[in-house]
Amino acid sequence: MPTEQEMKAALQKYIDGFGNQDAEMLISLFADDATIEDPVGADLVRGIKAIAEFYRKGVQVVTEISLAAPIRGSHANAAAMAFDFKMNLDGKKITTSAIDVMRFNEDGKIISMQAYWGPSDSKVQSHT
Amino acid sequence: MPTEQEMKAALQKYIDGFGNQDAEMLISLFADDATIEDPVGADLVRGIKAIAEFYRKGVQVVTEISLAAPIRGSHANAAAMAFDFKMNLDGKKITTSAIDVMRFNEDGKIISMQAYWGPSDSKVQSHT
Repeated sequence: MPTEQEMKAALQKYIDGFGNQDAEMLISLFADDATIEDPVGADLVRGIKAIAEFYRKGVQVVTEISLAAPIRGSHANAAAMAFDFKMNLDGKKITTSAIDVMRFNEDGKIISMQAYWGPSDSKVQSHT
Repeated sequence: MPTEQEMKAALQKYIDGFGNQDAEMLISLFADDATIEDPVGADLVRGIKAIAEFYRKGVQVVTEISLAAPIRGSHANAAAMAFDFKMNLDGKKITTSAIDVMRFNEDGKIISMQAYWGPSDSKVQSHT
């Protein structure tokens, strides 16, 4: 199992990966059989191929991302963080506040990501 | 299913319940068959009787609590929040940073609470 510090470092890399528009770095954090539920309540993105597509598209639309509070660990194979991000999507500028929960496998790769944000957490700032 | 606003209101009541040392209000947010995993990785607290004991003790040791960022919803029966709290425990003043994920049943009661905080998120501030 990864240490708490390794899990927190992976979550920081996740933020930095978006900041640097580095999809390949983001993808490298995930296990081959990982799943993404973003937002919680949506259909799962299953497996590294679909996840790669998700982040290659993601880094093209996310223009800003920052932690809202320090990353939290746990006493198990999980860590969580509150953050805010901005997107340019379909001609709209959208600001979203989210909490991501990541679970890790024995190799220290993310095996599941769940993103908590609801309709009221995503606001259209302006039309471009 | 509760609305996103009802779930967010329940999480705000959770913060206010600790702020007011109102254990009965906290307990009233939970379903009879709810579970608590605090921190994630610890044994579950199962059922309203054990949960009542958990919060009656909790409000006696938590001296301060505040949101670290606005409460997040989801597109399902869940909401999450990052917060910080202080405890007086066994003669020590402890500050902890956590993220709680709450899931709700059809009646709008919390059916599960999971608290993400690791050893490095809990700091002894001083000995009294």
